[in-house]
Amino acid sequence: MRIGAIEAGGTKFVCGIGNDEGVIEERVSFPTEQPERTMENVIAYFQDKQVEAIGIGTFGPINIDPASSEYGYVTTTPKPGWSGYPFLGTLKERFHVPFGWDTDVNAAAFGEATWGAAKGLDSCVYYTVGTGIGVGVYAEGKLVHGLVHPEGGHVLVRRHPKDEFEGLCPFHGDCLEGMAAGPALEKRWGIKGSELSQDHPAWEMEAYYIGQAVTGAILMLSPKKIILGGGVMHQQQLLPLIRAEVRKNLNGYVSATEILTNIDNYIVTPGLGDNAGLAGALALGLKAFICYNQK
Amino acid sequence: MRIGAIEAGGTKFVCGIGNDEGVIEERVSFPTEQPERTMENVIAYFQDKQVEAIGIGTFGPINIDPASSEYGYVTTTPKPGWSGYPFLGTLKERFHVPFGWDTDVNAAAFGEATWGAAKGLDSCVYYTVGTGIGVGVYAEGKLVHGLVHPEGGHVLVRRHPKDEFEGLCPFHGDCLEGMAAGPALEKRWGIKGSELSQDHPAWEMEAYYIGQAVTGAILMLSPKKIILGGGVMHQQQLLPLIRAEVRKNLNGYVSATEILTNIDNYIVTPGLGDNAGLAGALALGLKAFICYNQK
Repeated sequence: MRIGAIEAGGTKFVCGIGNDEGVIEERVSFPTEQPERTMENVIAYFQDKQVEAIGIGTFGPINIDPASSEYGYVTTTPKPGWSGYPFLGTLKERFHVPFGWDTDVNAAAFGEATWGAAKGLDSCVYYTVGTGIGVGVYAEGKLVHGLVHPEGGHVLVRRHPKDEFEGLCPFHGDCLEGMAAGPALEKRWGIKGSELSQDHPAWEMEAYYIGQAVTGAILMLSPKKIILGGGVMHQQQLLPLIRAEVRKNLNGYVSATEILTNIDNYIVTPGLGDNAGLAGALALGLKAFICYNQK
Repeated sequence: MRIGAIEAGGTKFVCGIGNDEGVIEERVSFPTEQPERTMENVIAYFQDKQVEAIGIGTFGPINIDPASSEYGYVTTTPKPGWSGYPFLGTLKERFHVPFGWDTDVNAAAFGEATWGAAKGLDSCVYYTVGTGIGVGVYAEGKLVHGLVHPEGGHVLVRRHPKDEFEGLCPFHGDCLEGMAAGPALEKRWGIKGSELSQDHPAWEMEAYYIGQAVTGAILMLSPKKIILGGGVMHQQQLLPLIRAEVRKNLNGYVSATEILTNIDNYIVTPGLGDNAGLAGALALGLKAFICYNQK
């Protein structure tokens, strides 16, 4: 089986081909430009690949309501040219195969639930912490869409007592993304996060914010796994600090051994590593293929 | 059709009989005492009622994992005698009918989605704001359980700038419940919430906290309806203040007409009014009946 996968990011697109075991057999990557030009590259890549389905996990916000006349559109993004662009429709005109379509973070959550850290579980919450912060939600065996789709990167957070940074979110100032995404780290400390030493106080502060958001996710959704991905999470010192924040915040209230005694196996990085995004798109494509052939 | 319903609260139990249209035909209420004695009352009530199924929405925390050996138990409650009590099992021994079993707030969310304010929608979040604060989550057509069940009454909140109250939650101090449940209102202001005037600054502060939690629910779950029930919500001046807080917090970020232009129809009180709890239990019973007869 050959399934196409598109990980559509704000700065680059990754396209690839994989199989029904989550193995990615080939891939290509190019920068995200104006949508027409970007889509030309996507179409050129898949033109002769004879895929049986294509899954797309994309930056957003996007319309994922199948009943809407704008299903498959990118909605209100500041990214030039993309606002109101019919992403899915453009590809459907060229490839007559089943399509999977969801946010990049929902795709990653689904990939992790299919082949990764949440394999075999019917729920997980996936965070990406990078240029922005995004959240994918998988609950009771389904990706959560609702009215639009989760935008959990923008939850309000308590300020760290020693933090006087005003926050960078153009909508909310000091929301989670405004305080803890990569650009906030860089602006607050004056150098890129990747150049800060491992014992810099930045990381304790970063864990304070991410840990707070994860605490909220646990209380609202009680997921069976929390998965933290994205560039900022490459800082390996962060994960233990975040787990400690979550335990401190919950203070024993959620009485589950997964949290009380086994949190190292509960709050984890992606089982699929940096493949989580593309493998997630692959999982969406595979699901679309299966649904189509069951009809 | 005659379906039994049990709304098991921390201070009182309400038992009733209803039909498959959500009409409650009769009901009885008695105080919550030691579990054995309370269960005697429940059993006596249903003894000759010839119900075809029973739905239970109960205070918690409870075990709702069907795969667990302690499924149907109340878990770690401070309520005397109830911790580790096999609530569901005790009734199953006496009544050989299908049972529905969930938290009181999940039951209320399900009742609202079946017959109330979220009728016809596949998602809603239900808050009860009273002696405590509880949250039921219905997403993608399913009640959310996960690891345990949502405990969204305990999310962390930013303090109101004028609020010096320390908070009442024994686990978290100034979490949502610690700052905004009925007992916090009473302790902070020195009189019961129901005795505060409608224009007392308490309500703006209360809306600040509840609005913050609702904002988080929207960002994490993107539900199609937010329903606010419980005794504190009987204060009719609260709802408009909460809606204003949510709009201020989101600041146009979630681009859905339901929120941007129609929030009065998005954040609402229960369509089933004070019947939401019992009707929710009825809906759980009806669902158990239907599932059983489809097997």
